[in-house]
This record gives sequence, structure tokens and C-alpha cells, in this order.
Amino acid sequence: MKVILVGAGPGDEELITLKGIEAIKNADVIVYDDLIGEKLLKYSKKDAELIYVGKRKGKHSHKQEEINKILIDKAKENKLVVRLKGGDSFVFGRGGEEVLALKGEGIEYEMVPGITSSIAVPEIFGIPVTHRKVSTSFTVVTGHEAEDKSEGEMQVKLSELNADTIVILMGITTLEKHVSELLKNPKRTLDTPVAILMNGSRENQRIVRGTLSNIVDTSKLENVSPPGIIIIGDVVNIL
Amino acid sequence: MKVILVGAGPGDEELITLKGIEAIKNADVIVYDDLIGEKLLKYSKKDAELIYVGKRKGKHSHKQEEINKILIDKAKENKLVVRLKGGDSFVFGRGGEEVLALKGEGIEYEMVPGITSSIAVPEIFGIPVTHRKVSTSFTVVTGHEAEDKSEGEMQVKLSELNADTIVILMGITTLEKHVSELLKNPKRTLDTPVAILMNGSRENQRIVRGTLSNIVDTSKLENVSPPGIIIIGDVVNIL
Repeated sequence: MKVILVGAGPGDEELITLKGIEAIKNADVIVYDDLIGEKLLKYSKKDAELIYVGKRKGKHSHKQEEINKILIDKAKENKLVVRLKGGDSFVFGRGGEEVLALKGEGIEYEMVPGITSSIAVPEIFGIPVTHRKVSTSFTVVTGHEAEDKSEGEMQVKLSELNADTIVILMGITTLEKHVSELLKNPKRTLDTPVAILMNGSRENQRIVRGTLSNIVDTSKLENVSPPGIIIIGDVVNIL
Repeated sequence: MKVILVGAGPGDEELITLKGIEAIKNADVIVYDDLIGEKLLKYSKKDAELIYVGKRKGKHSHKQEEINKILIDKAKENKLVVRLKGGDSFVFGRGGEEVLALKGEGIEYEMVPGITSSIAVPEIFGIPVTHRKVSTSFTVVTGHEAEDKSEGEMQVKLSELNADTIVILMGITTLEKHVSELLKNPKRTLDTPVAILMNGSRENQRIVRGTLSNIVDTSKLENVSPPGIIIIGDVVNIL
């Protein structure tokens, strides 16, 4: 029948949209990931089929092709399917791949945008990605370099990113490499402010601040661990 | 008492968060901009004070300092104040300036993130800002160059932005200049896809597609006019 791709937001269940909740309420099938709280699934119909496709330890991890197949099969059973993801489906959420699979089978789809952690998590900690006269551009980039580009086509290097503010997702385990790459760009200096934001919008959220000169050491002292967001630029300390 | 800065999303009133609606329901005072629909204000308390500070033609246009003063004065009257803005307060929304003003007076504030049009509007048109093996980074930048940086500190040029996907906000009236600037970067060619998205998420939404070679002419033929979003990169035609 139809698949609605819904972004569930960064973690706090109140940060889903009205349209997202409406889709959950109407769904016959909900295909959901990690980081989707019980508080969202409780809006579903009593007889809705809830299919977990996340990567929780010890459970079978679904490949993208398997997820695509579930969406296609359920839609072909004339079900209203909601694909529920953390954040926004199109910000490193592989939503595009799911849409391509659906289009290939002639299945109707609809996008319901979600609050992306890349902007909202800094915001909740009082860090604006833009600020008048300080940052008029921001770049969001994945820290997971491997495999994420076609052969022969290199992922853009952090040293080449010239926006005022840089937000790195999925980059905590490779922080040291990112810092040295960032420092190759004349826009950044040892004094450039950096913050690492963990579990943003959840009760156990935590921020670690520093500069490009000390953030690697500080993050070890503070037991920084993924998942989290790294934000770099003068906006970090502006408010 | 307290000021809550709420992002109302890109236009469709269903794209506000549950948390945003909750803030509107509890507010004693709502200070709102253009592009905020009646459908959102109707959630307010019967006796809530609604203060319009937008820029509608023929009406007095509030300066940022005036808006700051309203927020401060109302909060000092022990009111729960909601500052309601289109999109997200920290994505070219001048939320940072309001927070600084509040902090200067020792007034408590809270951020409720909103769906930013920079990501959501392309999404609604089926354009993902990231896509595996095609775009692993995106930059959001304002097309309004003037005045938006301190003296001596130039705004970053579009030619220097190397992310795979570029999203330009407030750039339609200066499209031609942006196109020639973009073409100075070896990552872009005359064939690089471009789309212009007008009134995204509203009933009268419209998309005009082209390439860097023809988008200026096409936009004239198609009577493209602001407000709108420009998105550049291979993601434009990926789905």
C-alpha cells in the first residue's frame, strides 16, 4: 500500500513531530531501529505488527537488503508501513536506499522529516550551529570514512572543509585522526573550540569541552565513548 | 520566569514537535514571527498574550533589540514566554542573540529544536542531503552575504565549500552570483545538478530542477521567486 519513512528525532520522545505520531497511530506495521523508545511504540494500534531491525548486541543484525525486503513485502500485503528511524531518515539514515528499493517495486512512499541530532543536540547544550557574525555556514559530515564512497571517489577530507562550524557524526572512536586532519586547515588552530556531546536529549546527556590542542587528552580523562557528536568552531563557546 | 525558544518547523503545522506544542499550550506570552500559522497559535491558552514581531509588509518591523526587550520584560513579569520561530532557532534564526540577551539579564531559557527547512524541504521533495557512496557531507550556508560577518572577517565563499551537497538558504535573488562562485570549485561542473525549492512543505510547494549550466535561465522562465532553498549536488537526482 504505502511506506512512510518517519524520523523519530534525537532520543527524547517528545522531539518527534505531530505528523510522525500520526503516522505511528495509523500504521499496520512499524519497522523500527535501535534508539526508538517504548514511549513512541506505545502510540501504535493494538494489533500493529512491530518489527525490530536494529543492531542490539546478541540479536541478529539486519542487513539493509533484508530491511528493504520487509518494507516491500509488507507494503505488497496492502499494509500501511511506517519505517521509524532515529534522527532524520536522510541524514546518514540510509533512507535514500530504502526509497530506491521501494521505487524499484513501484511502491508509494512518503517522507516525514525528523529532528536531526546534528543540529538539535548542540542546540540543547546551548551551542548554535550558526550565529550572526561568527558562523554563517555549517557542515555535517560522517566520521565513518571506510566504505562510504564508491571506489576511486574519496570521501572529502576534514582538512578540506571550510565552513565556520563542523559537526562530525559517528566520529568519537576516531577522534585523534579527525583532530589532526582538522588542524591541516588554516581556518582551525590549536585554540579552536571543540565539544563532544554524548547521549544528547536523553537523561544521561553529557558534554566535554576543550580545544583542538587538548580534546584528545580530555576525552580520555573524561571517558568519552560513542555514540556522540563532535562540534568544532567558535560557536562552541559563544553563548 | 522563563523563555522557551521553540522551532516551529518549515511551514506545515504538523511538522512541529510534541515538545513545541506543549510549550505553546503552557505559554502566558507567545512572541511569534512570520510564517507561523494560525493552526499553531490556536493551541495557546485562551488568555495567552500573542505578540507578532515579524516583518509583514505595511506593519512596523521589529528590530532584534526590540524583540530581545519584549522577551526580557515579559519574563521579568513572571510570565512563561514562548519565542516561536519558523524552522529551527539556531539555523539562521538569530536564536543565539536572544539567548545572549536573556543570559545578560540572568533569565532562564530552554531550547526546543525545530525541523529545519534546509534538510526537511529537500527531503519532502525526495532529495536526501546524504546518500551512501554519493554524499557523505553537506553544508548549509546563507546566501545573504552582506553584513553577516564582522569587519575584516569575510564570509566563507561558496567556491571554498567542498562538501558533497550544498544547501543555500536565502539565496534566490542572488542565484546568478552563487552559480558562478560554485563553478570556481573543481568539485562542481556545468553538469552538477541543482534544484530550487519554493514554499516547501506548504500546499503551494514547487520545485525547479536544472544544472549549474542552465539553472539561471530556467529559474527566470519558471518565475522562481523567494523564499526558497537552493540545493546543489548529485543527490538532487539520486532518487
